[in-house]
Amino acid sequence: MSTVSSLDISDIRFPTSRELDGSDAMNPDPDYSAAYVRLRCDDDSQGDGFVFTIGRGNEVVVAALQALAPLLTGRSVGGPHELAETSRALLHDSQLRWLGPEKGVMHMAIGAVVNALWDRQARAAGAPLWEYLSFLSPEELVDQVDFRYLTDALDREQALDILRAAEPGREQRAGLLRAQGYPAYTTSPGWLGYSDEKMIRLAEEAVAEGFTQIKLKVGADLEDDVRRLKLAREAVGPDIRIAIDANQRWDVEDAVTAVQRLAPWDPYWIEEPTSPDDILAHATIRRQVGPVKVATGEHGQNRVIFKQLLQAGAIDILQLDSARVAGVNENLAIILLAARFGVPVCPHAGGVGLCELVQHLSMFDYVAVSGTQEDRVVEYVDHLHEHFADPAVVRGGRYVTPTAPGFSARMLDASRTRYAYPDGAAWA
Amino acid sequence: MSTVSSLDISDIRFPTSRELDGSDAMNPDPDYSAAYVRLRCDDDSQGDGFVFTIGRGNEVVVAALQALAPLLTGRSVGGPHELAETSRALLHDSQLRWLGPEKGVMHMAIGAVVNALWDRQARAAGAPLWEYLSFLSPEELVDQVDFRYLTDALDREQALDILRAAEPGREQRAGLLRAQGYPAYTTSPGWLGYSDEKMIRLAEEAVAEGFTQIKLKVGADLEDDVRRLKLAREAVGPDIRIAIDANQRWDVEDAVTAVQRLAPWDPYWIEEPTSPDDILAHATIRRQVGPVKVATGEHGQNRVIFKQLLQAGAIDILQLDSARVAGVNENLAIILLAARFGVPVCPHAGGVGLCELVQHLSMFDYVAVSGTQEDRVVEYVDHLHEHFADPAVVRGGRYVTPTAPGFSARMLDASRTRYAYPDGAAWA
Repeated sequence: MSTVSSLDISDIRFPTSRELDGSDAMNPDPDYSAAYVRLRCDDDSQGDGFVFTIGRGNEVVVAALQALAPLLTGRSVGGPHELAETSRALLHDSQLRWLGPEKGVMHMAIGAVVNALWDRQARAAGAPLWEYLSFLSPEELVDQVDFRYLTDALDREQALDILRAAEPGREQRAGLLRAQGYPAYTTSPGWLGYSDEKMIRLAEEAVAEGFTQIKLKVGADLEDDVRRLKLAREAVGPDIRIAIDANQRWDVEDAVTAVQRLAPWDPYWIEEPTSPDDILAHATIRRQVGPVKVATGEHGQNRVIFKQLLQAGAIDILQLDSARVAGVNENLAIILLAARFGVPVCPHAGGVGLCELVQHLSMFDYVAVSGTQEDRVVEYVDHLHEHFADPAVVRGGRYVTPTAPGFSARMLDASRTRYAYPDGAAWA
Repeated sequence: MSTVSSLDISDIRFPTSRELDGSDAMNPDPDYSAAYVRLRCDDDSQGDGFVFTIGRGNEVVVAALQALAPLLTGRSVGGPHELAETSRALLHDSQLRWLGPEKGVMHMAIGAVVNALWDRQARAAGAPLWEYLSFLSPEELVDQVDFRYLTDALDREQALDILRAAEPGREQRAGLLRAQGYPAYTTSPGWLGYSDEKMIRLAEEAVAEGFTQIKLKVGADLEDDVRRLKLAREAVGPDIRIAIDANQRWDVEDAVTAVQRLAPWDPYWIEEPTSPDDILAHATIRRQVGPVKVATGEHGQNRVIFKQLLQAGAIDILQLDSARVAGVNENLAIILLAARFGVPVCPHAGGVGLCELVQHLSMFDYVAVSGTQEDRVVEYVDHLHEHFADPAVVRGGRYVTPTAPGFSARMLDASRTRYAYPDGAAWA
């Protein structure tokens, strides 16, 4: 029996805008930040979670986390059943729901708390989260899912069928995963703020390190995009996949024009060509830019958007994010939806701690849902990992499978102190 | 020249859950609330705006308003051009945008500020907002609109064409409006928490007062819904329109089953049958429940959702809300989209101050965009108006056209003090 006794909430910001790491067509100068929550329970167990933001407004998410504290304090959280109930209690609080519903600041804050509960749960069980989740029963897993608004595409029985079909090979795949890790791709070469020389050097280094896919940011200026993609293609050769990412900069016609212009240099996917809310626009763009694939999801607000993207045939690649929807539970729904439609999940990561979290979800997907790594890659960006107790590690272009108990969510206390905003030493 | 000097932000809550006013299938016990902002300028002009919430979490919206203060203080806001620029500056702040993008708490807070700027602008011009807006030039109006993500359905030239086509009759329609007001319908009889007797009595009173449309809440229990709709139909007779509102309670199949079951009592529209994010579900439901009309929009997060609802043929009735999207500017986009697709706008209202605000938008729609009141009605709920300096007035089933300068947004100081949360006398 474990009962939530308190939430320790903090505003943590890294001054990344000073180096233009993370710069793209929509986000020229982000300060990568986390609205961070540490749940403490009366049995001394703890769980950590956070919302990733890019600076200003991180304090608004902190306020949302604080608004959740009264709903959590005193709640029993000692197992999958209690966790499912707590997730539902947070999402279905009618007064808080009005602030979304199920989107934006309030929803992200709920996601951070739900993720922290899973971190606590896996730590208490002594297993890394991917493994803990992978060996829950199909019934325990579907109990985590809120099927409201999903049943025209996926109901409980269909979800159970997917999980049961994957049951037989779980042990074997977990063993392979521990031995070989999970495929990664890297965005580190491609930030818009980097010079051509830096981009080329980093792209060549990525290939030398074993990555088979890299990503470039596009969308600020089409002639620049053409030049950069051409240079990158020449640098890495024809066999390396180059994804391009417009970070929502385009309308439909702009997107089609740009991708067609870039097509001679064989971009693998176009990511976030337009508004993350625009299912119909993605479907229209996809019909016109093939064989270039369409990918989106890092700003997908909830399972209802993902359901529609799949129903409309709007995406080739589903890019869930670990810290935008309502945590592990809603991402289970999204992973099951992707499996139902046969669309590969290639998660968004980077930011603060997103690689740490999301690797667990893809590994769970491999072991217990899709059963394959084919055309699956998890994004990797090589910054800010040093602030985590159990940092994501990529070697030879693959994530090294985590073995430490938990969700890899815990930030070092020294980092939490130094980057506390506005009073930490980094901001002095 | 007018420059923002300060924002006075407050957390105001009315303990409406004590009476079950406002109770529906998703919101059993709302405390109608406002995250309220008063902009003060260096020339002593002021503007008021707010986000409507239903209680818990109102403080999160307050935090979001506070996050906007540094972007506003010192800005010049003295005319439509400056107002358009300020709206864009708030929406395009890349760091704050991450918190949506363009949805949820942060977006609603931006809406409150933008609405406050329009209140200030109309008050400074000495005109009620509907009139001030109606006689801006088509070019000034389209300059207010952010066409990003809209151009596959509506571009600047098409919007100009709509406005220019409506120019000739503006004076005449404004005169009719001043003389006759604008059609209203009432939700006051239909709250789920009311007894059958109270519902019937209020429905009969509504008809006696001149309303030609009422609305009932449904969605908690289908047998209750059937009984209540039958009783209401018997009470008001065949010529009064009865809308029903499920407040997002259903999945697709539930919605179709329920509406078909209720159809013998001739519901006029089914409102919010399912998730407000689910464009495809609304389209599917609409194909199966005709001739009952499908209506949604009060939780439509932004113009991109409305664009898709129209593109997909998912709605018969567009129910914009004055205080959920990014204020007057985004609602101009939504009104123009509705006109482009020939779908009537019947706004959501009620809550705290939503009737006060939204009447101006429908009146503007009539004078300067659609040019008609046919099948158009603005929701009316008869509570909390006494807290406003320029309260909405409905007589004979029609909104009385406002004549006082501004957006009717200003809450009385005595009310702001008494209902301040948690320290006002009402909460002591």
